[in-house]
Amino acid sequence: MSVTTPAGFRAAGVTAGLKTSGRPDLALVVNDGPLAVAAGVFTSNRVVAAPVVWSRTAVGDGVARAVVLNSGGANACTGPEGFADTHRTAEYTGAALRVDAGDVLVCSTGLIGERLPMDTLLAGVHDAAARLTSDGGADAATAIMTTDTVSKTSHVQGDGWSVGGMAKGAGMLAPGLATMLVVITTDAVIDAARADAALREATGTTFDRVDSDGCMSTNDTVLLLASGASGVEPAPGQLEAALTQVSADLARQLVADAEGASHDIAVTVSGATSETAAVAVARAVTRSNLFKAAVFGNDPNWGRVLAAVGTVPEDVAPYDPLTLDVSINGVQVCRAGGVGEDRTLVDLAADREVQVLVELHAGEASATVWTNDLTHDYVHENSAYSS
Amino acid sequence: MSVTTPAGFRAAGVTAGLKTSGRPDLALVVNDGPLAVAAGVFTSNRVVAAPVVWSRTAVGDGVARAVVLNSGGANACTGPEGFADTHRTAEYTGAALRVDAGDVLVCSTGLIGERLPMDTLLAGVHDAAARLTSDGGADAATAIMTTDTVSKTSHVQGDGWSVGGMAKGAGMLAPGLATMLVVITTDAVIDAARADAALREATGTTFDRVDSDGCMSTNDTVLLLASGASGVEPAPGQLEAALTQVSADLARQLVADAEGASHDIAVTVSGATSETAAVAVARAVTRSNLFKAAVFGNDPNWGRVLAAVGTVPEDVAPYDPLTLDVSINGVQVCRAGGVGEDRTLVDLAADREVQVLVELHAGEASATVWTNDLTHDYVHENSAYSS
Repeated sequence: MSVTTPAGFRAAGVTAGLKTSGRPDLALVVNDGPLAVAAGVFTSNRVVAAPVVWSRTAVGDGVARAVVLNSGGANACTGPEGFADTHRTAEYTGAALRVDAGDVLVCSTGLIGERLPMDTLLAGVHDAAARLTSDGGADAATAIMTTDTVSKTSHVQGDGWSVGGMAKGAGMLAPGLATMLVVITTDAVIDAARADAALREATGTTFDRVDSDGCMSTNDTVLLLASGASGVEPAPGQLEAALTQVSADLARQLVADAEGASHDIAVTVSGATSETAAVAVARAVTRSNLFKAAVFGNDPNWGRVLAAVGTVPEDVAPYDPLTLDVSINGVQVCRAGGVGEDRTLVDLAADREVQVLVELHAGEASATVWTNDLTHDYVHENSAYSS
Repeated sequence: MSVTTPAGFRAAGVTAGLKTSGRPDLALVVNDGPLAVAAGVFTSNRVVAAPVVWSRTAVGDGVARAVVLNSGGANACTGPEGFADTHRTAEYTGAALRVDAGDVLVCSTGLIGERLPMDTLLAGVHDAAARLTSDGGADAATAIMTTDTVSKTSHVQGDGWSVGGMAKGAGMLAPGLATMLVVITTDAVIDAARADAALREATGTTFDRVDSDGCMSTNDTVLLLASGASGVEPAPGQLEAALTQVSADLARQLVADAEGASHDIAVTVSGATSETAAVAVARAVTRSNLFKAAVFGNDPNWGRVLAAVGTVPEDVAPYDPLTLDVSINGVQVCRAGGVGEDRTLVDLAADREVQVLVELHAGEASATVWTNDLTHDYVHENSAYSS
């Protein structure tokens, strides 16, 4: 399942010993071809981890044959020595798989500011390379978990080809998680240009629209590998749709497992002058600590929604504050910028999922951004973090 | 003390009955002249409460003779009826004081989206007008409290003149609090232009640089009233310095009383190419929930500082990520973008105040933004808010 659902891929997940918990912490995904097409999307943070610097360059030629991922350490803010560690990981993995080091992508997740224990990590790579199987996707998905409580995988079956994926991440989403790592595979026949365009299209409306706590990671990475093993080239739009579907599924799973959350909140903004405007307004609401704390308390506090909407500059999202409508779980609690239906009609305690709809009455565009509530457990987990 | 320290002012604070707690909830500050100079700075939120709409217009001519402030209800998102309530409050107060309604400024704080009980409020105005005294400043400061645990006042003595002030607010700061209301008085002889310029200068480096939880209120208001009763015109810069000192003192008191906080965090960014760049970087750090939660856990998690610094676009704040230094309480835990001194040398548990210094090594400018840690109590207070 997962990344090994499409033909042409093997994977493994092992316990290298990077985590003090003794849980699996090293994953390997190998593309056996015949194609070795790859694309990547990375955090837009200017402070990036060594594996992001490496992988961004390595995937630049549209070719990759393997991805090695570790939890138990982010290898971020580790200076030139940290980059040398990533480089050595790629070299070692390449040698073990008999592929060029430049075709090995590296992802790391865990604490920032600490060097990885390289002997432990490389022994794990050795072990994983020996255990690669065509049904190792589930093990790989487990080995990349940090504070995740469940592993996340997805797949979509196309017409003679398929797309599979795995993801980890539970905290920082902005587009980044603490850390979001995603590997998506397909056995469809596509070239590097199509892979890159399809991946950017898919992430732009899925992973980029999840904003758990407004924090952007130094390590976020979404990779796409295409083996071509199906021999089938999907019709225009088909691969793109499947990739978006897998991305949306994985993104939704990330929200559902966000650190300490008790509610998943979908903020939909409609009636915007553009999709960009709709996203900007939705993101402002998803970043309101006050609104998110209110949802934790099952309080449909629409005033805090309006206060957040009002922070978006007029040149970004034109609207008239006196025409704003807000519905929460289908109850229009705010009408024309003022009091609407009785807020006590909203029952937030009944479901984990909360639907917030903001109608701007300014245009035709809409967008949805997902977030979570702000809870005691979020504060607890992030004030006492250890991977 | 407080707003009645300067000559020419009377104030009162009474219990009108707007709060279910039975605590004081209505304040009146009157300028008996001879001057009636006034200036105001208001929230930059596009969604603003009725009293902000009223007061912004009323102070536009640089003249005001009284401010009426209520807690127990924000009168925000209350539509045309809410504006009529504010208008009526100004009319009633003006009649009680025998001044023009257009010279009465109105401030409200409390829950959003509910009408004020006008009979109760106006009876409170009547009562307050009868109790005005030249030492009523302390009572007024108490009557504007919501979730504040202490009242906030300040004053600075000039050469024959003085500046006094009161503030309330404990949650939203961005520049806004949940809600920040500030009234500053002076008996110095100044004209409206100097009052306006001095107030903007003072708020720009004080209240605007407090960011408790990234949320911006619909009601934030800072007012300056000048009576001229001292007969002294301060030399250039003197009034401005005193006003900034009072503003800084009140802003620091707001941080110290922020909802649920256990740490006050001063984020100073130095080596920036401009003050604007320094503020942008500092603000990014003060808005990192992950860093703020770490401070709550007494964890000097500098990686989260760097991750926040990295979110500021390069055109806003140029710097090289590989030269960043971060010190926490004087210990340089991050050097040149990597590991610095031993983080265990930082003791965050010893003091409420935490000093974070980010050195960008890109220029000569610096700025400090204050925030608080993200705590269980913040989540609790904001998930079960009632004024």
